[in-house]
Amino acid sequence: MTRPRRAPGGFPVVGIVGGGQLARMCAGPAAELGVTLSVLAEAEDSSAALVVPSAPVGSHLDADAVRRFAADCDVVTFDHEHVPQEVLALLVADGVVVHPSPDALRFAQDKLAMRERLSALGVPCPRWTRADSAADVEAFAADVGWPVVAKTPRGGYDGKGVRVVSSADEVADWLERAAEEGTGLLLEEKVPFRRELAVLLARSPSGQAAAWPVVETVQTDGVCTEVLAPAPDLDDDLAGAAVGAGLRVAGELGVTGVLAVELFELDRKSPRGVELEGDDGPSFVVNELAMRPHNSGHWSMDGAVTGQFEQHLRAVLDLPLGTPSPRAPWTVMGNVLGGDHPELYSAYRHVMARDPGAKVHLYGKGVRPGRKIGHVNVSGDDLADLRRRAGHAAGYLEGAITE
Amino acid sequence: MTRPRRAPGGFPVVGIVGGGQLARMCAGPAAELGVTLSVLAEAEDSSAALVVPSAPVGSHLDADAVRRFAADCDVVTFDHEHVPQEVLALLVADGVVVHPSPDALRFAQDKLAMRERLSALGVPCPRWTRADSAADVEAFAADVGWPVVAKTPRGGYDGKGVRVVSSADEVADWLERAAEEGTGLLLEEKVPFRRELAVLLARSPSGQAAAWPVVETVQTDGVCTEVLAPAPDLDDDLAGAAVGAGLRVAGELGVTGVLAVELFELDRKSPRGVELEGDDGPSFVVNELAMRPHNSGHWSMDGAVTGQFEQHLRAVLDLPLGTPSPRAPWTVMGNVLGGDHPELYSAYRHVMARDPGAKVHLYGKGVRPGRKIGHVNVSGDDLADLRRRAGHAAGYLEGAITE
Repeated sequence: MTRPRRAPGGFPVVGIVGGGQLARMCAGPAAELGVTLSVLAEAEDSSAALVVPSAPVGSHLDADAVRRFAADCDVVTFDHEHVPQEVLALLVADGVVVHPSPDALRFAQDKLAMRERLSALGVPCPRWTRADSAADVEAFAADVGWPVVAKTPRGGYDGKGVRVVSSADEVADWLERAAEEGTGLLLEEKVPFRRELAVLLARSPSGQAAAWPVVETVQTDGVCTEVLAPAPDLDDDLAGAAVGAGLRVAGELGVTGVLAVELFELDRKSPRGVELEGDDGPSFVVNELAMRPHNSGHWSMDGAVTGQFEQHLRAVLDLPLGTPSPRAPWTVMGNVLGGDHPELYSAYRHVMARDPGAKVHLYGKGVRPGRKIGHVNVSGDDLADLRRRAGHAAGYLEGAITE
Repeated sequence: MTRPRRAPGGFPVVGIVGGGQLARMCAGPAAELGVTLSVLAEAEDSSAALVVPSAPVGSHLDADAVRRFAADCDVVTFDHEHVPQEVLALLVADGVVVHPSPDALRFAQDKLAMRERLSALGVPCPRWTRADSAADVEAFAADVGWPVVAKTPRGGYDGKGVRVVSSADEVADWLERAAEEGTGLLLEEKVPFRRELAVLLARSPSGQAAAWPVVETVQTDGVCTEVLAPAPDLDDDLAGAAVGAGLRVAGELGVTGVLAVELFELDRKSPRGVELEGDDGPSFVVNELAMRPHNSGHWSMDGAVTGQFEQHLRAVLDLPLGTPSPRAPWTVMGNVLGGDHPELYSAYRHVMARDPGAKVHLYGKGVRPGRKIGHVNVSGDDLADLRRRAGHAAGYLEGAITE
């Protein structure tokens, strides 16, 4: 059966374009809520296709496939940001309810559009520019100093599409492609941040919004490896300002569903080493936006009264939102990346035996080095101990720890 | 697709015979654990069939259907106790791994066998006998006093198959059928209990066991309507003795998976009104056994680190068991029975708006009066407030409360 079968009682069908782990992790909450999930999957063995009854196979780039899929759904939402605006426009013309809307999603698809819009709203950003030539890169670096951060406006994730460069030569290939495609490159100053934070919230079409506590995210080689919820020792004013900025972005951009705003918490020095004056300047800048459930929110599946996948479903259905309060003083999430255990099942038994309180989440994906294949959540009172436990479980599943 | 598609990495397929809500509620945990679920469903729109990709339709009474189903699974377990021993024996002969085993399951299928075995083990039971005739009923009542509790040994649930009778005439029809079928009737003394409790635990084939805190269950017209976890004001010794009895039953009977032991907590008077002497006598008796996830454990989905559906999967797969500790001081579960809202969705919106912390679980079942169609969990510090909240949410969904 690839068409969704509706539950009785007026319960809707939510369609998700893309069959990755984010769609997969909606399956449990959908079953609990009583709503039906349908997934447009890349393949029959996509992560989400393994766990939902309705998972037609088709590409998000194939307008006909997406329209046929959407015709069976009451609302369409996304596992990723890569559905082209042309395809989204056809859905809207067909009368399909799409959340987030194409107008909002544009700012998650195009980082230049995002920077332009956030700057116009006065939301703190690193200094940035659009570069179309080597001369543009040199000019920007002359202003903010080398190295600079170069980003392809579209299609990047997990550190892909991002380079920290010390000369224009290092992005010659990207400039050439950008010139062909007319897209330009995004250049940003390299911000000397203390740490990375994320604001995660959900907003419904009615305008109700609910934010989880601000978390700290730890990246390794551009990939998130650990999340601490809430962010330890976070200044209350900073937390309030960060959540405020997230809510403002969600409202101004008309975001519906879950919004993740990745932040750099700034050093008490400016990018060029000048001491900031008192509390005047913003103490964070926005790094990236994502308009879908996000890795920085996986902790909420076990650590909050309402997890991000349940909340995303509630939001896109315009149902009242659930409480985002934590269930424990601390939750630590450790990402599991593909490592040396193609036969993951035996490592998994070991991890369960060693730590009966660890919540191990696996995505049904084949192991490839560096691929996100699961995560582990642990909750409790002792942050240092939780970090050790999450780190050990994730490391063992990766094969990086063997005892 | 009705055959299960296996995830890579050596992850197993768990088959559940029966597509009711207990099978359905395994779907979320299975997706999280990375194991594949397959369900032998009564119909294409069975509760569980709406949420798992592999849900072939077939009867648990049809040996061929059950054997074909089991051939694709690494372990077979159950949504209910009604698979006949003849069918189970064929599975075992086929080499299928079945948990709980037919030998254990027999004591959940046949209440006379259960009473006989528990009595032999010295586990506290009400006084009981097997009756094959009106004379047997009269003789038992002469001993323990009218009224007596009559039970059909097989097929009862939620108060069905149970009558409290004051004369043999009131079970004349059951005696006639029992004589035809050679099964006998179970008679029990009517125990003057303080309240009902339940011990819930899981046991794995390796013999590891983990018990959740003892809960209080509140029944209305023979159907569970509310569960308080843990049972308020429960004597520590009684709790220990009850869990001990549950663990002993699980071990002696060789139970694998989740075991629910329903108890009566006794008044400090004996059944015939005589004061008990000191602390000598047992302060509880076993009422019923169930060898599967059970209504008395639904609170654990939100209220414990490891919920009963995850734990059942871990147990039948012989994976290490998870921590059964509560996540909050109190969790209250309110059952939602079918009422006056065939279009449940609008009532559900109302409940979500009124109580953003309520965890509403719906089963995708059509509304019929008295049918279990969902439940609501709320967790926190204030038991009285939680009872009000769970009661209001369940009552509103039932249509019994309209404001």
